[in-house]
Amino acid sequence: MNYRMICRFTGRILLVEAVFMLPALVISLVANEKKAVLGFVLSIAMIFIVSLSLILVGRNSKRIFLAREGLVCVAVSWIVMSLLGSFPFYFSGEIPEFIDAFFETVSGFTTTGASILSDIESMSDGLLYWRSFTHWLGGMGVLVFVLAIANSSKDSDGYTMHLLRAESPGPNVGKLVPKMKKTAEILYLMYILLTLLNIVFLLIGGMPPLDAVCTAFGTAGTGGFGIKNDSIAGYSPYIQNVCTIFMILFGVNFSCYFFIILKQFRNIFKDEELRMYVGLIVASVTLISINIASYYDTIEETIRHAAFQVASIITTTGYATTDFDLWPSFSKTILLCLMLIGACAGSTAGGFKCGRALLIIKNMKRRVKKTLHPNKVQVVRMNNQAVDENVLSTANAYLAAYVIIMVVSVLIVSLDGFSMTTNITSVVATFNNIGPGLEAVGPVCNYGDFSILSKLVLIVDMLAGRLEIFPILILLSSHTWKYK
Amino acid sequence: MNYRMICRFTGRILLVEAVFMLPALVISLVANEKKAVLGFVLSIAMIFIVSLSLILVGRNSKRIFLAREGLVCVAVSWIVMSLLGSFPFYFSGEIPEFIDAFFETVSGFTTTGASILSDIESMSDGLLYWRSFTHWLGGMGVLVFVLAIANSSKDSDGYTMHLLRAESPGPNVGKLVPKMKKTAEILYLMYILLTLLNIVFLLIGGMPPLDAVCTAFGTAGTGGFGIKNDSIAGYSPYIQNVCTIFMILFGVNFSCYFFIILKQFRNIFKDEELRMYVGLIVASVTLISINIASYYDTIEETIRHAAFQVASIITTTGYATTDFDLWPSFSKTILLCLMLIGACAGSTAGGFKCGRALLIIKNMKRRVKKTLHPNKVQVVRMNNQAVDENVLSTANAYLAAYVIIMVVSVLIVSLDGFSMTTNITSVVATFNNIGPGLEAVGPVCNYGDFSILSKLVLIVDMLAGRLEIFPILILLSSHTWKYK
Repeated sequence: MNYRMICRFTGRILLVEAVFMLPALVISLVANEKKAVLGFVLSIAMIFIVSLSLILVGRNSKRIFLAREGLVCVAVSWIVMSLLGSFPFYFSGEIPEFIDAFFETVSGFTTTGASILSDIESMSDGLLYWRSFTHWLGGMGVLVFVLAIANSSKDSDGYTMHLLRAESPGPNVGKLVPKMKKTAEILYLMYILLTLLNIVFLLIGGMPPLDAVCTAFGTAGTGGFGIKNDSIAGYSPYIQNVCTIFMILFGVNFSCYFFIILKQFRNIFKDEELRMYVGLIVASVTLISINIASYYDTIEETIRHAAFQVASIITTTGYATTDFDLWPSFSKTILLCLMLIGACAGSTAGGFKCGRALLIIKNMKRRVKKTLHPNKVQVVRMNNQAVDENVLSTANAYLAAYVIIMVVSVLIVSLDGFSMTTNITSVVATFNNIGPGLEAVGPVCNYGDFSILSKLVLIVDMLAGRLEIFPILILLSSHTWKYK
Repeated sequence: MNYRMICRFTGRILLVEAVFMLPALVISLVANEKKAVLGFVLSIAMIFIVSLSLILVGRNSKRIFLAREGLVCVAVSWIVMSLLGSFPFYFSGEIPEFIDAFFETVSGFTTTGASILSDIESMSDGLLYWRSFTHWLGGMGVLVFVLAIANSSKDSDGYTMHLLRAESPGPNVGKLVPKMKKTAEILYLMYILLTLLNIVFLLIGGMPPLDAVCTAFGTAGTGGFGIKNDSIAGYSPYIQNVCTIFMILFGVNFSCYFFIILKQFRNIFKDEELRMYVGLIVASVTLISINIASYYDTIEETIRHAAFQVASIITTTGYATTDFDLWPSFSKTILLCLMLIGACAGSTAGGFKCGRALLIIKNMKRRVKKTLHPNKVQVVRMNNQAVDENVLSTANAYLAAYVIIMVVSVLIVSLDGFSMTTNITSVVATFNNIGPGLEAVGPVCNYGDFSILSKLVLIVDMLAGRLEIFPILILLSSHTWKYK
């Protein structure tokens, strides 16, 4: 294991984190929030010191950097980044318990949006900004950012690929262009542009600047931290609709946007995953609108709430405009299914991913056909291209790991004695990086009442969900550490 | 598709069904239950006519009989057998709605044990006997029975293998002896012996003969239809413990009993699936006993109830001695997990099966190792033997189909507007052939209140669960019928 290289990368990530805390510090200074300023100054200083020490340790690292180093590096750096990212909440005293601050920060970076806060509006502006910003950085991935700004002459393409693979969501990470550094740059450019567009549309709707920036961060990262206690419910229908549209846009595979830039529109329409994603949204909105028609006064209101909640859940954002826990069970079950599926691979969204679900379904169909014609060679095709058996096998292993982690987590969380629905949906909502679940973790409730053990389990779930399980499994596997 | 052969087999199965209705008719005659007698006479006559017609149609069938014919044959014959098996309930008027009679019969043959009856004790003796007998016949499989009694000179070993494979539970059906007919015979002999032993032990405890026979049928088939409204709760602790032990015994792979006959005790202790099964039982009983200690007066009572419910759920039997819906959520979650896992392959139990879970976990571990050492060939081993990649791939496809069917079923059932827990556990409990779920389908409730649509969905789930999904998928796949 190339420890030095891992140290170097983690150090660089912390440096980025410290730098990104500066705007939050400025906001706190402007708003004259003394405790928050103190918290940020202390945190930035400490992160800076840790960062420099790690970079110093990793100075003369060897060049060997394989897939396992990439996975371990991603897992370790995300844990360290979350631990240190929670310092401002803790040092400012705005979240008195460290486990809660840690939970909130992991929830931020993993773009989950599950909160332990009961009164969000009492938090200072600087910390609200930092809380939402973690979504934005975690959405596209901090390592991708480091790669994008890295000095290309020094970093070889081989290991950047391993890092990008380990951090990016989806069963099969594609390069947009031959160079990985360039790919990372393009991804972040598109991400920044879409986020800016979102902010502009929100400002047009008369949203205050800080609200607009924070809401856009939460939308872009498909995170879901609101800065109001009632999430997005208090804003105008125009703003709610802007959120709906942008949530859906951020759930699309970013390579589709790259195809737009290249004017390869055909590739977009041909994309099976995108078609499944759009089909699921249209079907869900229609069914839920019919099911909840009697709950709202006008058809416009019904469709607006249905579309908002569907977009919020399938993209695993977790914003809410209404308490969907009060909806009839058919609608709630549709939302629960969407929670499990998630949006497209290669987007900022969490969940199992439409693409992976498609692979699993196609593989299942193949087994049925194989039973009928045992001697025929059968290939699974996606977008008219044969899928590598390794990708299929990994997708199947992913499903197994997904189910096992979920079952074990529910078992441990159930020790707290909440209802079945609460236990199941709290795990589903954190593991798939959504945020709100049902009943005691519904959209108008929070995760503050869980025991420390449950919070730790949910923290692991959030990280495993965001990093797509394998980095965490590799970190915990004895085989990783036995290897010489 | 060899339709004639399928007709011939279905006809033979119906003949067996008609013959096995005779003891029930005798019981009704002895107890002087007029309506039940009429129902049985009518049913036997009709089944006999249908059976003979089918055998006549299939008289000159070709010898070609491949895997797909085996699967279609199993699916069709189970549906027909259930439809006709529900006639006595309907004709006697004891279950007035045909959909309910069908539900009850499918629940019987699939060894689910989910009932739509609210007052079981008002049913006549003959029908109670028939209801429990469906468990016994469905447990080991009616086709296996037909094979066991078939004229061996006429039936080639090739297609009997396909039938046995399609009907027997587990990822990898093993022959006990080279000849399939002999294997079927041995299986049924061991099954009959164990059932008789169970009856004897129950009679020793002072159980009335009809109760003992019916209870043993429900235990042997891991079905769960009781003949009392309170299931097994009203019987003595001795009888409850006998049930616990025999439920666990019927959840063991029958090849283990064959090893006992052959005195190959080593093979039994080496069996990884058996070790997982026993380990799960011991761990669950321990954890639940600690969790529910304050609910009962003595330690003996606590352990007895914990062991009974664990045995009942993991073997997917579904008997109850206490209302476990009142237990704390940790214990309920353990039971829910056991519902999903099920007992050993090659037993009469339903569920996902320990063996398949082991395969899935081992395959997942292999993927992790593969990431660490990409160039090393990795083989999954079970009981020290390399597992065929086809078996692994099928197990993975099974998991996918399992998850998809469950999610779609919950979605449809949720239209009835029951609680989330009710919807989820009703599907889990029928699909895994257990019987009782939680809340509105808990051990003291029944399935009578569901809509016809939901009942149909649950019927499909029970059949798909008992036949291990693929026969039903093959039946519904367009590819099956396009093939010339």
